[in-house]
Amino acid sequence: MYVAVMDNIFLLVLVTLLSVVQNVFFALKVEKECTGQHSKNHSAAFERLSCANRNCMDTYPTFLAVLWCAGICLSQAPAAFAGIIYLVVRQKYFVGYLGQTCQSTPGFLFGKRILFFLSLMCVVGIINHLMLTYGGSDYKEYIQTITKVVSTLLLLP
Amino acid sequence: MYVAVMDNIFLLVLVTLLSVVQNVFFALKVEKECTGQHSKNHSAAFERLSCANRNCMDTYPTFLAVLWCAGICLSQAPAAFAGIIYLVVRQKYFVGYLGQTCQSTPGFLFGKRILFFLSLMCVVGIINHLMLTYGGSDYKEYIQTITKVVSTLLLLP
Amino acid sequence: MYVAVMDNIFLLVLVTLLSVVQNVFFALKVEKECTGQHSKNHSAAFERLSCANRNCMDTYPTFLAVLWCAGICLSQAPAAFAGIIYLVVRQKYFVGYLGQTCQSTPGFLFGKRILFFLSLMCVVGIINHLMLTYGGSDYKEYIQTITKVVSTLLLLP
Repeated sequence: MYVAVMDNIFLLVLVTLLSVVQNVFFALKVEKECTGQHSKNHSAAFERLSCANRNCMDTYPTFLAVLWCAGICLSQAPAAFAGIIYLVVRQKYFVGYLGQTCQSTPGFLFGKRILFFLSLMCVVGIINHLMLTYGGSDYKEYIQTITKVVSTLLLLP
Repeated sequence: MYVAVMDNIFLLVLVTLLSVVQNVFFALKVEKECTGQHSKNHSAAFERLSCANRNCMDTYPTFLAVLWCAGICLSQAPAAFAGIIYLVVRQKYFVGYLGQTCQSTPGFLFGKRILFFLSLMCVVGIINHLMLTYGGSDYKEYIQTITKVVSTLLLLP
Repeated sequence: MYVAVMDNIFLLVLVTLLSVVQNVFFALKVEKECTGQHSKNHSAAFERLSCANRNCMDTYPTFLAVLWCAGICLSQAPAAFAGIIYLVVRQKYFVGYLGQTCQSTPGFLFGKRILFFLSLMCVVGIINHLMLTYGGSDYKEYIQTITKVVSTLLLLP
């Protein structure tokens, strides 16, 4: 049983680990700035860094929940792929937030498209499960193929 | 094996999805206020909205952890039911926070009763598991029936 | 199947429950201070309490994710042990934060060593799984023994 479980989640664990590494990177950035030299525009930079970190942390549990639900309900490969794209978007958001306020102006919420895609995967997975239980028809393989194709669309800017 | 797993968690996934939708709703509210028109009492309203959102987000991981533990350890239907009530309470809390400070005065922590109920479900589930392993007696079905009855008590105001 | 699952996670559930109790304890502290008497150094104390609570909450999802991944990928006993040490470190951090700023000076990020240990457990677990799938060799029992020994090193100050 153990091997079967691990087969279905090890990509999700990898993405989770990557996100944890990114979290620690963000936290270390904030800590370094916090204890850094107190120059003139120190407090403004720290404020911005701290705000970027907070916005990232606020959506982190939401992201994790949707990632794991989508991976378990439907299939892990597209979910992990979407997760990695989300991490790239988050990195861009964090770096962009530190630039000039006028040029970056990132929103409060980022990666909406990816969160929407993962939520959709959950819904489709649950509907498929209910159809399998009450109707007896299983479209899981078709859906997994479609999901893999659709997940590449996330690469579009 | 896959169908057995899904049977035991699909209600939890549904509640998680609902909570994610609510989170996104809160975040969009904050974002809209953040980029909205700068009227006189703008900053006070934004401050209050941002504070309500932060309090909700602070307890979100705690809620998710307790919800899933209770659902896996004991049974998913009462856990999902308590989860939905928690979401309703959170919605009320968020809306109430935006009203006048004098009339609402919501606490820092909300839904204590529901979190307590879910924690109790975890504890009972673990005790039952230990009794099953070391004592050989299984009261799971009685406990599940009792839990379902008790969970309706959460509806009391 | 159910008993096998519970056997592998019940220690993790226990640690999660303990962390939830600690979260609620932190939140109640903040709430009590927030509605407390308005003395002279009230706002400074509240600021510090709120900041300590926020730092703890910011790393909480990261901690939970790494704890559960490590527990599921490798073995639950060392993961739960590291989790309990993390909770002790967090308690010390929270209490230390409330003291004088000069004597405590706690960092922004705490428990780095424990998070690193748990991440390492995940990586080792995934590598072992891949070797089992593609190479056919299973070192799981050796690794689990080594992990248990190494986890006691976390007790060193």
